[in-house]
Amino acid sequence: MQRAISLIGSGQTRFGEWWDKSLRDLMAEALDSALSASPATALDIDAVIVANMLGEFTNAQAHLGTLASALLPHRPPALRVEAACGSGSLAVHMACALLESNRAQSVLVLGVEKMTDASQEDIASALMAAADAELDRPSGITFPGIFGLIARRYMHEYGLTRDELSLVSAVHHMHGKENPYAQFRSAIPPETISKSPLIADPLRLLDCSPISDGAAALILSTKYQTPMRLLASQVASDTVSITERPSLTSFPATKEACEKALREAEISLDDVGAVETHDCFSIAALINLEDMGFANPGEAIRIYKDIHEGKSTMRLNRSGGLKACGHPVAATGIKQIIDVAKQLQAHEERYGIAHNFGGAGATCGVHVLASMP
Amino acid sequence: MQRAISLIGSGQTRFGEWWDKSLRDLMAEALDSALSASPATALDIDAVIVANMLGEFTNAQAHLGTLASALLPHRPPALRVEAACGSGSLAVHMACALLESNRAQSVLVLGVEKMTDASQEDIASALMAAADAELDRPSGITFPGIFGLIARRYMHEYGLTRDELSLVSAVHHMHGKENPYAQFRSAIPPETISKSPLIADPLRLLDCSPISDGAAALILSTKYQTPMRLLASQVASDTVSITERPSLTSFPATKEACEKALREAEISLDDVGAVETHDCFSIAALINLEDMGFANPGEAIRIYKDIHEGKSTMRLNRSGGLKACGHPVAATGIKQIIDVAKQLQAHEERYGIAHNFGGAGATCGVHVLASMP
Repeated sequence: MQRAISLIGSGQTRFGEWWDKSLRDLMAEALDSALSASPATALDIDAVIVANMLGEFTNAQAHLGTLASALLPHRPPALRVEAACGSGSLAVHMACALLESNRAQSVLVLGVEKMTDASQEDIASALMAAADAELDRPSGITFPGIFGLIARRYMHEYGLTRDELSLVSAVHHMHGKENPYAQFRSAIPPETISKSPLIADPLRLLDCSPISDGAAALILSTKYQTPMRLLASQVASDTVSITERPSLTSFPATKEACEKALREAEISLDDVGAVETHDCFSIAALINLEDMGFANPGEAIRIYKDIHEGKSTMRLNRSGGLKACGHPVAATGIKQIIDVAKQLQAHEERYGIAHNFGGAGATCGVHVLASMP
Repeated sequence: MQRAISLIGSGQTRFGEWWDKSLRDLMAEALDSALSASPATALDIDAVIVANMLGEFTNAQAHLGTLASALLPHRPPALRVEAACGSGSLAVHMACALLESNRAQSVLVLGVEKMTDASQEDIASALMAAADAELDRPSGITFPGIFGLIARRYMHEYGLTRDELSLVSAVHHMHGKENPYAQFRSAIPPETISKSPLIADPLRLLDCSPISDGAAALILSTKYQTPMRLLASQVASDTVSITERPSLTSFPATKEACEKALREAEISLDDVGAVETHDCFSIAALINLEDMGFANPGEAIRIYKDIHEGKSTMRLNRSGGLKACGHPVAATGIKQIIDVAKQLQAHEERYGIAHNFGGAGATCGVHVLASMP
């Protein structure tokens, strides 16, 4: 970081089904709680960056940056950033650039999505805009299908079993039970996950993060300082289409963004006390841990086994992850950063990582937070 | 500017109807011409910012930043920026932040839109996503209607006549005739404009910029320097809904962005030798000139009269503006900067301004270019 950037306030709506709230209502709620938690006033906000993927499709609303800016009395400069399900972390990345360039001293980053009003078929089709419309969509596949193929290949390469895979969502639901902002707050045993309805074999319903409404907001500042610092913000890209990849079981964009972020923060994985990773589907969580370097290829399930059996205290998706929290797609990358900060504060840990991606790992954003002594 | 930023390469497709080209094809064509015109190689590009508004709607494709990044061999970090028809200038603004923060030394900015495959009704509805879905859309109004109301109010306040208004598009078409990249390359006399089919009284067909396909690309760099420098990049916001505005005949975001940009560039309007302004509808061009300070309220038509009668040599929308060039919405703000640079070079002028907005002046981006001696 060229300048010291602090996370000075954050807030979110509970993720879930909010049929009685508009995109603007959700943004206003998250904004209000972020502002009231922060030492800054509304007039301190120099710029607004909104992360959103599906606004045109689900709400006939683009131009969300300016719509959010008008929630503030002075209507600061604003724009919307989109990188599919990675929109949230990319918006934070651009906020860092505005702060480091000194074009702004305090930036509001707001992620919002309202997905539950559309039919499941329509949402599945809309989400396929995150894949390649020329190379992927004509096959008729949807995202559960893409990750179904990935899971099938992973099982073939590494011998992962269906019952083992169920430990991933079981651990996430165990954690989500404690999170008042989570969409689903009940523990679910692995056996129930293994028996839930088939979606895209081998993936079952409880391997898939849900369709959700919600908003998350954070305020980053160089003017106000708090002990919660953003130490690194890195982004990497891969091909959008899985047909152009040498492997289905590793996402190189995660490797690149994570390596760069650790280097920027000048820490190693061993220093990390809290991790939020992008478990849009259970199989993704395993691949992410391997790409980030927490496990060798094919061995990440060991981490979930250990957490499930109480043998590991690793703070991994303690929020409940996308599976239990819900996944209002563009809000997720922002919510992850908020959750990492909460965990660092609650457990007096020093460093945490938020890992967010779009598509099948095509765009990856990684942020490192530090709770300064 | 915190650093010296040069425009080191630019290119565009001709704007028009490209039913045989995909979004990717259009981006590749603009990218290739920008790269081949630049001292940088593909591997110099540290980041890609894509401006796009309608990709989900017209092409079932989001995630366009990463899709564009994959056109380069090393797939640099990428994202998409959207601020309705102001997306192009906002993307350039974010590129400046990346360069000023030193997160990148060369950034590719690519604006792309493919609109002509959809029906006119569907495009009119899609473009309404730039207005307020809660406050504007329920009235049934579309953007020609919004600017029709604005034109009617302007005529009421200032006595502008229908035949006077026709001079705006007549001048733009006169200029567009000379631009090989313009969608329409024929001079159109004011009488023809006054008699063209009614769209939203008082606006007629030839008051409205067309629906277009096209892409425009530019490369900004702090590593490579050319005589074409970007001196200022400023953005301002207004309410998205016209129902929340004190006046229909002035866009405060233009005033604010333009004043800030002149201040940042340390020049005055008198220094400006070339202007491209956002004439999505003829009436907008008049309001823009007044908000920018080139004319008093109600008097901008004098400038068009003088140009039409050969009494003024002001370089105003010499590209042909949105009316003659076409308006692939997110590409426009980038194309304007390219055109200002071309005019500065061709006429040995020092300073130029590109003025781009989204919605009914709800988001405004203003850039100042300088051709250094």
